[in-house]
Amino acid sequence: MRKEHDFLGELEIDDMCYYGVQTLRAVQNFDISGRRLKDFPRFIISLAKVKKACALANAKLALLDEKIKDAICFACDEIIKGKYHDQFIVDMIQGGAGTSTNMNANEVIANIALEYLGHKKGEYEFCHPNDHVNLSQSTNDAYPTSIRVALFEYLSDLTKAMEYLQAAYERKAEEFKDVIKMGRTQLQDAVPMTLGREFKTFAVMISEDIKRVKSAREQILAVNLGATAIGTGINSHPDYPPIVAKYLQEITGSNFTIAADLIEATQDTSAFVQISGVLKRVATKLSKVCNDLRLLSSGPKCGFNEINLPKMQPGSSIMPGKVNPVIPEVVNQVCFYIIGADVSVTLACEGGQLQLNVFEPLAAYSLIHSIVMLEKAMKTLADKCIDGISANEQICKDFVMNSIGIVTALNPYIGYENSAKIAKEALNTGKRVYDLVLERKLLNKEQLDEILSPENMLKPTLGIKK
Amino acid sequence: MRKEHDFLGELEIDDMCYYGVQTLRAVQNFDISGRRLKDFPRFIISLAKVKKACALANAKLALLDEKIKDAICFACDEIIKGKYHDQFIVDMIQGGAGTSTNMNANEVIANIALEYLGHKKGEYEFCHPNDHVNLSQSTNDAYPTSIRVALFEYLSDLTKAMEYLQAAYERKAEEFKDVIKMGRTQLQDAVPMTLGREFKTFAVMISEDIKRVKSAREQILAVNLGATAIGTGINSHPDYPPIVAKYLQEITGSNFTIAADLIEATQDTSAFVQISGVLKRVATKLSKVCNDLRLLSSGPKCGFNEINLPKMQPGSSIMPGKVNPVIPEVVNQVCFYIIGADVSVTLACEGGQLQLNVFEPLAAYSLIHSIVMLEKAMKTLADKCIDGISANEQICKDFVMNSIGIVTALNPYIGYENSAKIAKEALNTGKRVYDLVLERKLLNKEQLDEILSPENMLKPTLGIKK
Amino acid sequence: MRKEHDFLGELEIDDMCYYGVQTLRAVQNFDISGRRLKDFPRFIISLAKVKKACALANAKLALLDEKIKDAICFACDEIIKGKYHDQFIVDMIQGGAGTSTNMNANEVIANIALEYLGHKKGEYEFCHPNDHVNLSQSTNDAYPTSIRVALFEYLSDLTKAMEYLQAAYERKAEEFKDVIKMGRTQLQDAVPMTLGREFKTFAVMISEDIKRVKSAREQILAVNLGATAIGTGINSHPDYPPIVAKYLQEITGSNFTIAADLIEATQDTSAFVQISGVLKRVATKLSKVCNDLRLLSSGPKCGFNEINLPKMQPGSSIMPGKVNPVIPEVVNQVCFYIIGADVSVTLACEGGQLQLNVFEPLAAYSLIHSIVMLEKAMKTLADKCIDGISANEQICKDFVMNSIGIVTALNPYIGYENSAKIAKEALNTGKRVYDLVLERKLLNKEQLDEILSPENMLKPTLGIKK
Amino acid sequence: MRKEHDFLGELEIDDMCYYGVQTLRAVQNFDISGRRLKDFPRFIISLAKVKKACALANAKLALLDEKIKDAICFACDEIIKGKYHDQFIVDMIQGGAGTSTNMNANEVIANIALEYLGHKKGEYEFCHPNDHVNLSQSTNDAYPTSIRVALFEYLSDLTKAMEYLQAAYERKAEEFKDVIKMGRTQLQDAVPMTLGREFKTFAVMISEDIKRVKSAREQILAVNLGATAIGTGINSHPDYPPIVAKYLQEITGSNFTIAADLIEATQDTSAFVQISGVLKRVATKLSKVCNDLRLLSSGPKCGFNEINLPKMQPGSSIMPGKVNPVIPEVVNQVCFYIIGADVSVTLACEGGQLQLNVFEPLAAYSLIHSIVMLEKAMKTLADKCIDGISANEQICKDFVMNSIGIVTALNPYIGYENSAKIAKEALNTGKRVYDLVLERKLLNKEQLDEILSPENMLKPTLGIKK
Repeated sequence: MRKEHDFLGELEIDDMCYYGVQTLRAVQNFDISGRRLKDFPRFIISLAKVKKACALANAKLALLDEKIKDAICFACDEIIKGKYHDQFIVDMIQGGAGTSTNMNANEVIANIALEYLGHKKGEYEFCHPNDHVNLSQSTNDAYPTSIRVALFEYLSDLTKAMEYLQAAYERKAEEFKDVIKMGRTQLQDAVPMTLGREFKTFAVMISEDIKRVKSAREQILAVNLGATAIGTGINSHPDYPPIVAKYLQEITGSNFTIAADLIEATQDTSAFVQISGVLKRVATKLSKVCNDLRLLSSGPKCGFNEINLPKMQPGSSIMPGKVNPVIPEVVNQVCFYIIGADVSVTLACEGGQLQLNVFEPLAAYSLIHSIVMLEKAMKTLADKCIDGISANEQICKDFVMNSIGIVTALNPYIGYENSAKIAKEALNTGKRVYDLVLERKLLNKEQLDEILSPENMLKPTLGIKK
Repeated sequence: MRKEHDFLGELEIDDMCYYGVQTLRAVQNFDISGRRLKDFPRFIISLAKVKKACALANAKLALLDEKIKDAICFACDEIIKGKYHDQFIVDMIQGGAGTSTNMNANEVIANIALEYLGHKKGEYEFCHPNDHVNLSQSTNDAYPTSIRVALFEYLSDLTKAMEYLQAAYERKAEEFKDVIKMGRTQLQDAVPMTLGREFKTFAVMISEDIKRVKSAREQILAVNLGATAIGTGINSHPDYPPIVAKYLQEITGSNFTIAADLIEATQDTSAFVQISGVLKRVATKLSKVCNDLRLLSSGPKCGFNEINLPKMQPGSSIMPGKVNPVIPEVVNQVCFYIIGADVSVTLACEGGQLQLNVFEPLAAYSLIHSIVMLEKAMKTLADKCIDGISANEQICKDFVMNSIGIVTALNPYIGYENSAKIAKEALNTGKRVYDLVLERKLLNKEQLDEILSPENMLKPTLGIKK
Repeated sequence: MRKEHDFLGELEIDDMCYYGVQTLRAVQNFDISGRRLKDFPRFIISLAKVKKACALANAKLALLDEKIKDAICFACDEIIKGKYHDQFIVDMIQGGAGTSTNMNANEVIANIALEYLGHKKGEYEFCHPNDHVNLSQSTNDAYPTSIRVALFEYLSDLTKAMEYLQAAYERKAEEFKDVIKMGRTQLQDAVPMTLGREFKTFAVMISEDIKRVKSAREQILAVNLGATAIGTGINSHPDYPPIVAKYLQEITGSNFTIAADLIEATQDTSAFVQISGVLKRVATKLSKVCNDLRLLSSGPKCGFNEINLPKMQPGSSIMPGKVNPVIPEVVNQVCFYIIGADVSVTLACEGGQLQLNVFEPLAAYSLIHSIVMLEKAMKTLADKCIDGISANEQICKDFVMNSIGIVTALNPYIGYENSAKIAKEALNTGKRVYDLVLERKLLNKEQLDEILSPENMLKPTLGIKK
Repeated sequence: MRKEHDFLGELEIDDMCYYGVQTLRAVQNFDISGRRLKDFPRFIISLAKVKKACALANAKLALLDEKIKDAICFACDEIIKGKYHDQFIVDMIQGGAGTSTNMNANEVIANIALEYLGHKKGEYEFCHPNDHVNLSQSTNDAYPTSIRVALFEYLSDLTKAMEYLQAAYERKAEEFKDVIKMGRTQLQDAVPMTLGREFKTFAVMISEDIKRVKSAREQILAVNLGATAIGTGINSHPDYPPIVAKYLQEITGSNFTIAADLIEATQDTSAFVQISGVLKRVATKLSKVCNDLRLLSSGPKCGFNEINLPKMQPGSSIMPGKVNPVIPEVVNQVCFYIIGADVSVTLACEGGQLQLNVFEPLAAYSLIHSIVMLEKAMKTLADKCIDGISANEQICKDFVMNSIGIVTALNPYIGYENSAKIAKEALNTGKRVYDLVLERKLLNKEQLDEILSPENMLKPTLGIKK
């Protein structure tokens, strides 16, 4: 055991631990969510990247000794490689505007650095969590910057998963491009289309979403390093911001810049609201796709039964042979989670007061958790559902042939009024529209076959057909 | 024109107007929502009821001259009868914690009273909006009390609409009690039930909801009259609370009481959150019913088509004969509105600070608007949809006969494994379960008819059947 | 009275009315929200603009007689000028995916056109709501296009209000640029800043928001005219889309284009979710500004009292002289409304099924109502609050002089540990930091005055000062 | 390794594992949230309690062999004691309406039972997960029943935490009962009260909340055991429901009963919406309390500074001596989480279709996680914040003495108009109300001391004083 102190007093810490007194206080204070920093490795890595950039900038400005800088960089690199993550034990949901997360990083880095320098853990006179690791920083700039770096990378993962799902939709769009089926509006039979176009629509929708996610991602590239306490930059060097930005770009490979107004950037969390809003948009549409998949595969005998989802697991302990659309179902739930989390993020951002938003930890946790779940849900949907979908072509075709909706295509030839009469009789008698039109000699068979041919019902042809 | 002043100065008012200077300032300050007090008559009436109760209590305590009391009561009675509502022109959404609403009422009542007393409008020395009409009150007690009285009565209207809708469900439950159909879980065919039971379920659900609404309604019977500014009762008579409560009970016919802790009651808005939560519960289930109605009536050829909704209006300008489930659709939207409004109410209530919640006007507006819309939606659903629903009995029956799900009933006789094999073959070949069981001689026709008879599949019979 | 019929039968209509049978049915079916089309004039005008563009395109393609086209255009122009708006009586919240709104427009336009052509209302053989006014259209393309045109214009109004508010903030930023005050993080005293920078922050925040609103506005420029029923363009001319787009651009003066995939565009409502998300972002920050204004003006004696808001109305019927921050309070409530409405919009968009989203009326209503309220709230805030704010300079300055937080600036000179001791003693004894440092001879007066001079505490100076 | 199969095929399982093939499939299908059954022990224990009750009922009805029943009961008891929890590895968020959770329990129980009976794991012919453990059950009854049992117990924990927090508030109410301070409405100085009453209000609020939680808890006592697939009770014994209810009561010690309408009970999730709504109510008020605590302790020099929160951790790496209100801050965030989660629960419940709600896993997860976090947050608030609060009595008293708001108490003696003049002059000159009244000889010193004595300003005294 070793002893460490802060201005509230002294605590004993197991000497195996790289974290220190402030981390320990935070663990005692915040036993809340059961989700710790170590559950979100990309976030820990982002903290290390930010700390490394700051150390390099401090050394460049001659504010930090080269040797200590090297030790801090070594420590950060170890963490970036995935080591010491078990030392990041603070609850993701915490008071103090992220101070505990920041200090957890500062302390772990300091102690790794100390060992690198040949000292023992806790000999902070040689490398201090605050005076060296946190130099030129405040929680109020280092923490939100780390969140932004992490979000940027989590969002990059997400867009890859979205592209992966888009490709799965596209393959089905191609596979089903000749499967004629009835389109439906308001759950009522409308006019014909193809199953391929139905899946193509899913692909187009997500391709739009990808653009929005990428656009929202760009908005978090402006960080507030150099702000220190409230954005005035007190106790920092005037040349620090551009230098630290350059290092952060090098380390992350992404185009992070320093916000134009650091006071504004320190208190403003609207980029989080914006990202949350975009995630909600993605979730809303993904949920709609899952609703459609469940509807189109309803049955097998008493539903739409136009498509078959792959069978992933037995669906019932009591109903033999029953298989359920479990993958769309779980994806729906992830979407519902995200839509709710958007409200939490909004509350956290609305609640910020004056020069700082103290509720950033909740916003960060909600966003990161939402993104990670969404990414997993999309991959799951692609691999375990979309890829294995098959079409019941005959059923799709029969729906078209038996439908009354195709009467729409006759409007320009026999008039709306005649069409409406045919529709009514078809519904009442169960006879087919095709047969009724012939029966009444409104059109001859040749004309009717021409008008009702799939290629003519699937696209604009008015003024083209004879 | 007449001139009126308050401590900010003097304004000119059209002498036709019964409202005064403070109402006019409020109209100038708050041009926000387009919804005014006069759009919600029950709320205006509640204000008058509260003002009347206060006047009577003040007179009883000899704080108010009998003649002035009579004039105030006359004015309140006129408003309760529905007169002068056009004088209530303040925006429902306002700053000032309801002061403008309270003053709008005080001023209109004062001027009606003045005319009753033979004076001219604005001669407030004979009956003053603050000194007489508002005597022993503060906005902080009179306004929330009026909201509570209004909510209580709006909720009473709502429960009547709910009972009306329940009765409509019950009639259909009776009408369809012998229509056998397939039940569905996860949109997949499950086991048989009746259409009557499906509607009965809707009735049971709403009957539960009625209980919850009534229970929530009880929670707003405790009001904070006598609290004055913050609940300490400053500038009020110690005997005032029980006396005013008695008058309020007489005037409203409802069991309003004075809250035990007036400081708590003055700042606490949790009854609004609770009512909002219950409305959201009701909306959630009503939306689910509408989703089911739209699903069960999907078709007519390419959907479930188990029931027909009454045709309320042409469904398409382009598709002849198309009729849509417009009533459930509009009810769904009311439900979505209410679920969102619950978030607004929550934010308003969370935002209250220290001794008062200044956001009560939004909470009141959202709740009242939600309740009024919900009431209308329920009556509309009953009259224009539920009452006219008919069943497609043959389709319902065919679904059962052709379904694979009935294999479940065979489990106890041929075993889960045999049942699963039959299910699989039925799905692959399109043959009926009934025929396959006979074909394989797993049961004889008599046994099979017994087991698969509706009465045996619709209720627990294990251990009863031979 | 005249008689009109649709395929559900015949109704009598007052011959003064320009609307027809389908509007009347809608009014009977949907008595829900109390908010009608006529309450939102920009939306009515947008409907007319879309109908005019369609008529011109139909004439260009020789699908519509020139004379009828002219009559339709005349009717649309009248509506665009603001006439006949009282004929738009359908409830904004309706079933049928907007068919009733579309038919209300079709009928009113047809009857105005009929009179222009010298016919009587209802003589639809000469100009028919469906066959002529709605030619080449379906509700499913004309309605969402009209919503988009309306939203585009409402959002343009909004950005102007935002710029107006930004300018008000900027003026105060300039006015207060030399007012030194304490910055606060977590409601605890932090380090000095200026009141000007505090208002500048509000300006920067809203300038960012303006960009986001404009960016979201661009996303609704793609419309789905030519989609007809479900996006396949059935019963339309293949050359129609580019032609109608050109006319729509001319009429609106905005760069509307036809969506690349009309099936996707017909069912997708994600632009509404996106706009709603951006509105929520704007509301979240606006609410934060109002929270800050109320906090900074708290008092006058027992609060922060750093600024004075203009006095808009007496604040209490019981507390003489009390004035409340009523304008920020009402703006907060508008923000809460919008945050809740975002949930409603999300539910409406999530609930869309297959080839159409039937809940667009709620999404449209919520968005339009939110935008209109937000615009009014922003103008109100600028005119009735920000413009009249004054600073209590001496109080602001005294806070800095008496604060302990300025000890932060001494860190680089006397060390964190000495600073912490000074801070502790200052808190315990009530002595000023300045005096304690001198007393302990840690720095001389000259040094101290230099370090604690405002210009040095308000910006990065590390490594610069001697 | 051992091999197990279901009707989708065969999988290999490590023979150390008590779970079986269906659990394994679920783990492969649902890698979503990172939160597994084993993270929520009370839920696992509830599953075991339900399974035990069913086994006992089955044996009683002679449907299950006594020996197998004993083995199943042994297995359940082990789990209830806390053993084998590591075998519950399914993700809390899953498709299939809880089938995977149910089968995880069935499989683990079956294998423990098999070993108890002297067999090897996987020898299901002697004790089968479906045929024996799940006998007379379906996921659709056993799973929601287990959720309800778990929620009931989690809510019981919560009410204990609430009572614990209430007691902490009460102690402070007593401690501060003589600390006179200014009450504030709309953040503006109002009239005097005591700090004790402020804390008493918190106590009263939470005592109301406790009642609501207990009332909501009662609503989940009705379970749907005996419903089997959809509520018709197919394949179950008619006498099963009352018998299994009796056993469930014995095992849980709580008054669980069987719902009156099992079809309704199987699809209805409104009790979850209701509980969620009540949690949101509790969160809304708890958040308000935390907001107040942060406001009252703002400072130390530039804020209200009426109370001191205990110092839990250093508040800043850059500002020496700064201590932040970290505990209220973290509690606020838990509240925001819960308010958002309420939206997720609502969406899950709204999305249920026809005879089953497939989204119960999300509702269950959200509710359980919310309750557990709320419980922890309340204990944390009591122990680490409320208990250590001290009052700055002199500051509180000075605020009263210097305030203008006390002029309210003079209204009945010098009139509203004189009071308003005094208030205005006090504000403009900075003089005290007390001195101004004397100066103007409106009242003599004796009268003034009487009227402004604390005891007279803190309660209703009108008509009492001379």
